Amino acid sequence: MDTFECPTCGGRFPADVFAAFCPDCRDPMFVAPDGRPRRVREDEAEPLRAFRDFLPLDDIRPALSLGEGRTPLLRLDRLAGGLGLPRLFAKNEAQNPTGSFKDRGTAVAVQKAVELGFRRIGTVSTGNMAASTAAYGARAGLETIVLLKEGTSGASLRAAAVFGPRLFAVRGDYPRLFFESLRIGRAANAWFMNSIDPYRVEGYKLTAYEIARALRATPPTHVVVPVSAGGHVIGLMRGFDDFVRAGLLERYPTIVGVQAEGCGPVARAFAMGRDRIERFEHPETIAHAISNPAPAAGNVVLAMIRKRNGLVVAVSDEAMLSAQRRLAAEGLFVQPESAATLAGLEAAKARLDLGPGAVPVLVLTGSGLKAMGALDRQPLSVGETDLEHLEEALAAR
Amino acid sequence: MDTFECPTCGGRFPADVFAAFCPDCRDPMFVAPDGRPRRVREDEAEPLRAFRDFLPLDDIRPALSLGEGRTPLLRLDRLAGGLGLPRLFAKNEAQNPTGSFKDRGTAVAVQKAVELGFRRIGTVSTGNMAASTAAYGARAGLETIVLLKEGTSGASLRAAAVFGPRLFAVRGDYPRLFFESLRIGRAANAWFMNSIDPYRVEGYKLTAYEIARALRATPPTHVVVPVSAGGHVIGLMRGFDDFVRAGLLERYPTIVGVQAEGCGPVARAFAMGRDRIERFEHPETIAHAISNPAPAAGNVVLAMIRKRNGLVVAVSDEAMLSAQRRLAAEGLFVQPESAATLAGLEAAKARLDLGPGAVPVLVLTGSGLKAMGALDRQPLSVGETDLEHLEEALAAR
Repeated sequence: MDTFECPTCGGRFPADVFAAFCPDCRDPMFVAPDGRPRRVREDEAEPLRAFRDFLPLDDIRPALSLGEGRTPLLRLDRLAGGLGLPRLFAKNEAQNPTGSFKDRGTAVAVQKAVELGFRRIGTVSTGNMAASTAAYGARAGLETIVLLKEGTSGASLRAAAVFGPRLFAVRGDYPRLFFESLRIGRAANAWFMNSIDPYRVEGYKLTAYEIARALRATPPTHVVVPVSAGGHVIGLMRGFDDFVRAGLLERYPTIVGVQAEGCGPVARAFAMGRDRIERFEHPETIAHAISNPAPAAGNVVLAMIRKRNGLVVAVSDEAMLSAQRRLAAEGLFVQPESAATLAGLEAAKARLDLGPGAVPVLVLTGSGLKAMGALDRQPLSVGETDLEHLEEALAAR
Repeated sequence: MDTFECPTCGGRFPADVFAAFCPDCRDPMFVAPDGRPRRVREDEAEPLRAFRDFLPLDDIRPALSLGEGRTPLLRLDRLAGGLGLPRLFAKNEAQNPTGSFKDRGTAVAVQKAVELGFRRIGTVSTGNMAASTAAYGARAGLETIVLLKEGTSGASLRAAAVFGPRLFAVRGDYPRLFFESLRIGRAANAWFMNSIDPYRVEGYKLTAYEIARALRATPPTHVVVPVSAGGHVIGLMRGFDDFVRAGLLERYPTIVGVQAEGCGPVARAFAMGRDRIERFEHPETIAHAISNPAPAAGNVVLAMIRKRNGLVVAVSDEAMLSAQRRLAAEGLFVQPESAATLAGLEAAKARLDLGPGAVPVLVLTGSGLKAMGALDRQPLSVGETDLEHLEEALAAR
């Protein structure tokens, strides 16, 4: 039986996937590490097996996997040069099975769901998380429930629906759904593995492990990641914590959380030196995947990043679009939300020690193919010619 | 200096990327294996390095990679059960950096381009190959030219344009462009690495190597792959050939090529027992990525598959859409063109020996995210409820 731990008050409770919020602080809780000795199984290719000592799973069932993880860590030398950095890396989580980092978390949560005997899972989302949960639910043969905002339509709905989940458009206060889904889930014996679910967050730790392993010779000094509900950045921080504790990483990297200027409740509280976030009224940004006006783990993120001398910054839509173009010019087509990491590194540059020893890493969270609408905001130039004049057209610049 | 070899007459010529067609047969030529001893470098994680003995590259430059390959090979047990098969595997090439198998070929061709000192590359495509070539060209810092049919627009154009290639919409006979691009390329010193480029085809061999390595204990008996221009299936066949020759694979698997009924020139010639394909008039299929009415390597594919007792079958759009749903029900969202492999296996089932020892593998070629329009042809059912009645709605089935 796992234990949940409140990051705010340190309270510990027997794990209950329907009650993952501290009864005292109301903050989200996470899985407390047990006392097992932990080492990396170097002979295992699959990430869940290689890092299984660090995961709250009794067993790893390969049949539940879609091949998540082992994503590329790429050096971006031209971009680094342009920014005056000694080097720059990108961890491309967009290359997961459904095209986003969510698969890391869903993979672990679904392993746990099968371990615990669940036959039903669900999620409250219309975006990357819906597609990821529906895909892994289908893979595991679980009934999967996706709760949508009333009136949701379009590509992201279709991209989740294809996996055959039960879809419900729910009238009423959408943010309330997040908490209601846990209560209703208990009654319906359906585990709603939402954005900051403790087991989902366990999966995000693996991205930190892979970064640390790949950069053994020159450990990461700065890790830049978009912040929405907070689950991803918390998972990364917990992952680096694990490795420092296990003696596998010497120094904890500086975390730079990035939000959109048009919806940046955590960045605002950080800038104002506050301990608690406030709801961000009238959100407006192209970065839908990180447009969360009242992130449930916002306060925890704020405290964890401050404690480790990190930063949270906000960037404009224009800065994200510019960053999207510059990452594409290196061969990486990502969502504006992911490009926000490059924009965020630039915004934070003056406040970071990015000298010759710096090893900054951008965590790219989702494929550009999942946000084709954003390309309407990018320039497009197509030359015209006929076959007979093609040679001249190519010569002209 | 590499040698090109004609698969039809066996003629050998010094490699020239602008003249990769046999002057006698007019068939496309491929890279002849040199006499080097070949072994797999088990200690290398990156595919190009692990299999470098099998590639016509002097050196592997990691800076040119986007992290292609090492794609998942998944067991599909429920689908296998439904089809009465002892087991079934899918090699998910959709999980390559730009979401399609094309990255395997582009990665090798771009390595060669840099080795040969090219500063310009190009391709004639509006689909997966355009995006892949533009991405790898950007990564390598090469000027990349993408030639489009006049009037091309939409998502696939945007998905290539984002990488910043020089785009030209070309008036005139589009199929002629394929050959003209090679002539013009020589004049402009721009290597047009089109669908059946010899070095591109070398890259596709790696998918065969990875399948053979992953299934060492139970070697693949049947490999099912969509056929368009022919480069991909030829690459796979050459890859299995390499491994059989090197003693790394005991038995050559039966190849099942799949085309669309609405555009299946190779399947038609195969069914009619002909040696030469004929242009397929009035193509009409949702499977745009394999809708090639006069595939340049069609005759070679026909001869190679026949020689090894393989099959070429055609499947309907409806069969592809059904297969797309059934693969999604296993967690895999792929293009209808990729789902064609499942439909093709079903169509060919009666003519194949799929007894208890069968180990069939579907090669899934591209992500469903690249063909969102096809989802309009899939059913969509969204329940509606308000928050207060959600519990009842979930209970009702």
